[in-house]
Amino acid sequence: MSPHALVFDAYGTLFDVHAVARRCEEYWPGKGAALSQRWRAKQLEYTWQRSLMRRYAPFSQVTQEALEHSCAGLGLALDKGRSDALMQEYLSLALYPDVAKALAGFRMKKAILSNGSPDMLDPLVKHSGLKFDAVLSVDEVKIFKPAPEVYQLAVDRLGVAKENIGFVSSNCWDALGAKSFGFRVWWINRLKAPVDRLGFQPDAIVGSLDEVLL
Amino acid sequence: MSPHALVFDAYGTLFDVHAVARRCEEYWPGKGAALSQRWRAKQLEYTWQRSLMRRYAPFSQVTQEALEHSCAGLGLALDKGRSDALMQEYLSLALYPDVAKALAGFRMKKAILSNGSPDMLDPLVKHSGLKFDAVLSVDEVKIFKPAPEVYQLAVDRLGVAKENIGFVSSNCWDALGAKSFGFRVWWINRLKAPVDRLGFQPDAIVGSLDEVLL
Repeated sequence: MSPHALVFDAYGTLFDVHAVARRCEEYWPGKGAALSQRWRAKQLEYTWQRSLMRRYAPFSQVTQEALEHSCAGLGLALDKGRSDALMQEYLSLALYPDVAKALAGFRMKKAILSNGSPDMLDPLVKHSGLKFDAVLSVDEVKIFKPAPEVYQLAVDRLGVAKENIGFVSSNCWDALGAKSFGFRVWWINRLKAPVDRLGFQPDAIVGSLDEVLL
Repeated sequence: MSPHALVFDAYGTLFDVHAVARRCEEYWPGKGAALSQRWRAKQLEYTWQRSLMRRYAPFSQVTQEALEHSCAGLGLALDKGRSDALMQEYLSLALYPDVAKALAGFRMKKAILSNGSPDMLDPLVKHSGLKFDAVLSVDEVKIFKPAPEVYQLAVDRLGVAKENIGFVSSNCWDALGAKSFGFRVWWINRLKAPVDRLGFQPDAIVGSLDEVLL
């Protein structure tokens, strides 16, 4: 049976964050890949650590702090101009090529559920031109993924029981957090990575958004 | 004023985990550094993700699952013999050279507070010959660092108020989690890394255990 609603992760799932890496490489030639990998890893670490410390801060702040730490660790000089420009990239990320057509084909309710704070997420969705029934941010519950409170937010705001919600993410730990909560889960495994060992399995592993619901 | 008790992190702070990397290199020549870095990063990720998912599992299980995932990601064949031998290394890690003398000089109560489960931590401490007033594992509270429940465990078990506890860790996020909780904190910065951006600063940043309390 088809889910009554589909809920999508944003960064890396619908939106390609590669433009950020490209801008890093432009600023620090030869260091773009190392910086953007470290930045992304630190950004996620900070979301988990702050959540456990009960010291939530908006994703825009966490992302900027992760950038500062990553540049300091690599010995790269970061000024306000570069920091602002890199943060700005997040507001106009491109969609993956499979996204617009696949979304148009899904007839049920559709929502985004993201770590992104409204100051990052709202301009990004507006820029994309996509339409959703809800654009939900963890900022409402002041804790980051994969805490169950986050997934519960989708249940509450969509008015759909969790067993009737399909959840789609390219982040395996997010997919498994959603599975642990009780959603039916598609993991978009674009990079052919192994499944994370967190005690759960996705309901389906697919290569792109086109294959969701097939 | 001196703290009434000193509480130490174990892995990387008192015990040198380098032997694990050496064994990885022996099994997979040329891949030891990549594997051990990835293994350590994944081990920590799983502690944070499981804590947020409310799916605690003992550190021995998390560590083994992180090893399996890391080997799969790097395309390295892992059999039970190698997995068991790598896990075994954790039970007899060497102390950093500064540890035994520094600990002998501290006259207050001393404790370990570690993510390690008793099946890993107890043999390790026994093997080291060090004596502590308490060897405390997060396994008692079923959530990992940097959750405040973990640091509260030291207060409860040592019977010392948090403002009178000094906490020592080489993991900056652990030091800052302890600071957020209310301990006085020494961060052992062996690798000259920048301070993590988590809204707190350590009370002191030192290069080795000898410098704690100076």
